[in-house]
Amino acid sequence: MPKIANDLDAFLTQHQSRIEGELFDFLRIPSVSAQPVHDADTLAAAEWVKRSLEQAGLAAAVHATAGHPVVVGEWRGAGPHAPTALVYGHYDVQPAEPLDLWTSPPFEPEVRNGRIYARGSVDDKGQLFLHIKALEAHLRTRGKLPCNVVVIAEGEEEVGSTNLESFIEHNTKLLAADAVVISDSSMFAEGMPSILSSLRGLSYFQLDVQGPSGDLHSGIYGGAVVNPAAALAGIIASMHDANGRVAIEGFYDDVSPFSDEVLAGMRKLPHTDDAFRREIGVKSLGGENGFTTLEKLWTRPTCEVNGMLSGYTGDGAKTVLPAKAMAKVSCRLVPNQDPARIAELFEAHVAKHTPAGVTVKTTYIHGGRPWRADLAGPIFDAAKRAVSAAFGREPVIVGEGGSIPVVGDFERILKAPVLLVGFGLPGENAHAPDEWMSVENFRLGARAMAALWDEYAGS
Amino acid sequence: MPKIANDLDAFLTQHQSRIEGELFDFLRIPSVSAQPVHDADTLAAAEWVKRSLEQAGLAAAVHATAGHPVVVGEWRGAGPHAPTALVYGHYDVQPAEPLDLWTSPPFEPEVRNGRIYARGSVDDKGQLFLHIKALEAHLRTRGKLPCNVVVIAEGEEEVGSTNLESFIEHNTKLLAADAVVISDSSMFAEGMPSILSSLRGLSYFQLDVQGPSGDLHSGIYGGAVVNPAAALAGIIASMHDANGRVAIEGFYDDVSPFSDEVLAGMRKLPHTDDAFRREIGVKSLGGENGFTTLEKLWTRPTCEVNGMLSGYTGDGAKTVLPAKAMAKVSCRLVPNQDPARIAELFEAHVAKHTPAGVTVKTTYIHGGRPWRADLAGPIFDAAKRAVSAAFGREPVIVGEGGSIPVVGDFERILKAPVLLVGFGLPGENAHAPDEWMSVENFRLGARAMAALWDEYAGS
Repeated sequence: MPKIANDLDAFLTQHQSRIEGELFDFLRIPSVSAQPVHDADTLAAAEWVKRSLEQAGLAAAVHATAGHPVVVGEWRGAGPHAPTALVYGHYDVQPAEPLDLWTSPPFEPEVRNGRIYARGSVDDKGQLFLHIKALEAHLRTRGKLPCNVVVIAEGEEEVGSTNLESFIEHNTKLLAADAVVISDSSMFAEGMPSILSSLRGLSYFQLDVQGPSGDLHSGIYGGAVVNPAAALAGIIASMHDANGRVAIEGFYDDVSPFSDEVLAGMRKLPHTDDAFRREIGVKSLGGENGFTTLEKLWTRPTCEVNGMLSGYTGDGAKTVLPAKAMAKVSCRLVPNQDPARIAELFEAHVAKHTPAGVTVKTTYIHGGRPWRADLAGPIFDAAKRAVSAAFGREPVIVGEGGSIPVVGDFERILKAPVLLVGFGLPGENAHAPDEWMSVENFRLGARAMAALWDEYAGS
Repeated sequence: MPKIANDLDAFLTQHQSRIEGELFDFLRIPSVSAQPVHDADTLAAAEWVKRSLEQAGLAAAVHATAGHPVVVGEWRGAGPHAPTALVYGHYDVQPAEPLDLWTSPPFEPEVRNGRIYARGSVDDKGQLFLHIKALEAHLRTRGKLPCNVVVIAEGEEEVGSTNLESFIEHNTKLLAADAVVISDSSMFAEGMPSILSSLRGLSYFQLDVQGPSGDLHSGIYGGAVVNPAAALAGIIASMHDANGRVAIEGFYDDVSPFSDEVLAGMRKLPHTDDAFRREIGVKSLGGENGFTTLEKLWTRPTCEVNGMLSGYTGDGAKTVLPAKAMAKVSCRLVPNQDPARIAELFEAHVAKHTPAGVTVKTTYIHGGRPWRADLAGPIFDAAKRAVSAAFGREPVIVGEGGSIPVVGDFERILKAPVLLVGFGLPGENAHAPDEWMSVENFRLGARAMAALWDEYAGS
């Protein structure tokens, strides 16, 4: 089992209470990027990150964008022949509402039962900050890092990273790196450090069904007119077959299977369907026949209704034959499905299943590509050793059913592999009241990321 | 061709401008039963009807109910051996909103192009009032009627006739009649007086689908959980087969076919699908294969979605896997389908088509029986002659796709046949802005209903 260097470990132990006090200062800034009332706070958080990077020993600057700024810190003392790593995180947070559901106020961090409760504690201030402190441990102990490191922290992750792709494209020299490291995800379970091997992509649609030019009386007209809500129900029902497979023609054509190794790793994870059922509150699960739950969530594409609206939805009865019906439907995609190609297939399917008597407009709202890590190469090997050193066990390889579009952007623009290693935990309430981060994981995460640079440069 | 008696015709001609002035006074009262702010107006309309009945020569009283009052007028001078007819109408009106869509204010009646524009003009003040004036023509010209007549006018028709059934049940002696006459419907077309032969019944349901205990992230959980909106779409889609027939097991078991004579009459009506399509603004029609449009609307039962709601329905995209989905679904029924029996079959169908992983609660909100007239007997024969006398042509026999529950109540409680003869016209905007009644139909309707009593007593 690899070990973390004694000097780094000693620094982080010695400065533990100061570091956690600084984190609390960071968490007190209500940098809610979605709420213009917090624009000054969001800017204050960017300035705070800049100062924190400088305190750690990096040169840092706040870069204006069309939205919230991007903070970049650099330490290039390892020279042009050493590798360069780029660490990404975000300093903005989700809105804290509904406030009355918080046990302690969202911007007054508090430790209870080994957890730091605050908005942004795990998503992503705590995880960004543990990287800064890992760098500080190197620079304050040894005066140098074994590789060059650039840190980029954005303030728009919670509002779609609107300006980040363009910032990366316009700053490829500043951000050029041999590897990208992101800690903005969770471990599979307590005590089980995890590296993310894949993300699903997305194609999100709105369907607008138009029947008669106005709402009709369902008594006077019912039975001779195609009902737009029933037509929409038929279209939605046509999207799956009896085995739970997506029935859109060509939908699976580009799906590239996961490696046996990754699939075998998933089967070893301590997942039970019973616990999963209890977590979400259902009596039985669903989805595509022939796959385990984790395979369904991480390795298989989906087609899910996100919303539906038609006619009268208030109390009691209104005998209306609605003129319109609307649905939001989105597909999660896996490698190598292409969101735009899926949009074409989806539209064709809808058109084919639209009955005469109504028209359907399919709007492709947005999409994102799926992503899969190579899980090979220096940064992954280094991460496995560094995480093992800090946590005392090898990281497991996990998938993720959601999407993080910026991962693909970094990989594509910088042509560098992306390592996703996160220190959150299931149930951490990242976007909900009572968000928390484990104190233990914050401490071990900082040690793992400090060890990462030794392992990366030594590999 | 029968003729209306000269004295009645002369009276109605001579008093025409006074009668129409009185109708305008009636229409000026904003008796909107649904709006508590108009409670005093609704009461004022009841008092106005009472005075109008008295002016016509009937004894009248306003009877309190738990809601808006019922007005009853009586003339029993024909003696215990003469037949008694009960005339029903309502003095309340629909809300007038949206006010800005009215060409002239809803409670300031105005004649334009031969139409009386006002809220309640055709539904039902104009049609109730023409009956009162027909009675006045008899009583003021001859001092008597050829049969006993009782008039009942309610003030809650537009809010579901909440207290009427109970009023009838508690006043069977006051209301006892050999026939019931109702003018609260429309003619098939201009110049084509119509007698209604049937009404459809109703069973109205709400479906509440519950999946996971809370909304889930459609990326993190999508693909392994039964989506309640998709489950609801599947249930709704299962309700019809490929031929447009309702696929609920046993749904058609109790359907009793319409007579060849009534069906033949329908086929002779001047209906074209092209005109119907243009009226409602669709490119093609739908419904059950093998039936004409009028047969679908009047003689066939239906199952229509009235409303649907699930998940995120705002602008843009939200990647939610909804915890719940809701739909309002109602069946229109034809003789001899029973609403309660249909409710049982509907619930069983929903249960059968509910996938494991969600639960569905089916709520039977309300129902009403279908109705079919005998179209034989003294009141129908008299109506055919009286309408022919006034309009110069025989009435056509039409159906109605909607429901008027009170018709069945009168028939069941009073054990008397109900004649539905209405003088509205297509496009009259009964529940919409710019409601109107044809001046010509108001005049001819009064003459027809005056002639009715001569024909009824003479038959």
